[in-house]
Amino acid sequence: MKLLEEKILKEGKVLKGDILKIDGFLNHQMDVDFLDKLAKEIYENFKNRGINKILTVESSGIGLACLTARFFHCKVLAAKKSRSLNISENVYHSTAFSFTHKKENTIVVSKEYLSQDDVVLIVDDFLASGNACLALIDIARQAGATIAGVSCAVEKTYQGGRKALEDLGLTVVSLAKIGEMKDGKIDFID
Amino acid sequence: MKLLEEKILKEGKVLKGDILKIDGFLNHQMDVDFLDKLAKEIYENFKNRGINKILTVESSGIGLACLTARFFHCKVLAAKKSRSLNISENVYHSTAFSFTHKKENTIVVSKEYLSQDDVVLIVDDFLASGNACLALIDIARQAGATIAGVSCAVEKTYQGGRKALEDLGLTVVSLAKIGEMKDGKIDFID
Repeated sequence: MKLLEEKILKEGKVLKGDILKIDGFLNHQMDVDFLDKLAKEIYENFKNRGINKILTVESSGIGLACLTARFFHCKVLAAKKSRSLNISENVYHSTAFSFTHKKENTIVVSKEYLSQDDVVLIVDDFLASGNACLALIDIARQAGATIAGVSCAVEKTYQGGRKALEDLGLTVVSLAKIGEMKDGKIDFID
Repeated sequence: MKLLEEKILKEGKVLKGDILKIDGFLNHQMDVDFLDKLAKEIYENFKNRGINKILTVESSGIGLACLTARFFHCKVLAAKKSRSLNISENVYHSTAFSFTHKKENTIVVSKEYLSQDDVVLIVDDFLASGNACLALIDIARQAGATIAGVSCAVEKTYQGGRKALEDLGLTVVSLAKIGEMKDGKIDFID
């Protein structure tokens, strides 16, 4: 999506440790009018799949997920990062390693809100290793829900997330695909 | 707001420890079409105040904040709960005691995204003791920003938050005001 690539080139910074800093419009501060355009694009890609729920994980995916859900007229379910080791019987849970925080996160979703009747689209801000998405997929499968696909704003193509998801037979749509970040320069691939 | 009161009576449950469980539409699962109506109501209350930014705190306020920002055509800034004690010089920070999690949270906002040029509306899901809002106000004041007011979906009127905020001279608009929760019954006040 040209619009997103241009925004990244204009406002993004490449920091040490392969970090793309675009938190001025994507997740810490959210440029809602801009994200609404990304949301519409995600909707256009998945609008005929019978999706009735968007699944994301707190907290950086919630803004984009809610804006996307407005086009689908569906609900958003935001998995929580569990602070305790006591996982209740009333939740589905899975674990994802976070490279950003260098730790294993347990994420949970209330069993009340996800079932085999749901057709879910997974939405997040970034796709890198795919670990967060894989944990959400694990949870959706525990619930017996149908997974219509995965959509992210920005993909770091060189971190393997897409392959892991496509190997599961899933449709993956990311709106900007980064092929390389080198010496502060960002290269996109189509 | 009658619509929200009816939704709470229909879907809400009162749990032990003065907990109103409405996470099926407000924050864990988000009924986006419904929240969009709350967002419009918040907008109607504050539309003439020159607001250019909505300030909230992760993660349960983000959905409502983003939907509200769509009406204002403004940005959302979501304060982060800091996981580390090393607070960088590049952030404003404050602390809020969370009764839900029984602990002190440090919340942070990047200095890049808040300044004296901003006129902010604080948006959150719940107003109870007001601690989260007070921390956001502290941060907005550190930045020299103007605070146009505070708006929350659900207020527990008996926990003192409104008084603390109004004592600071702030306009507080909550969409449903709970006067009492007793024996599983929820009473609203006008």
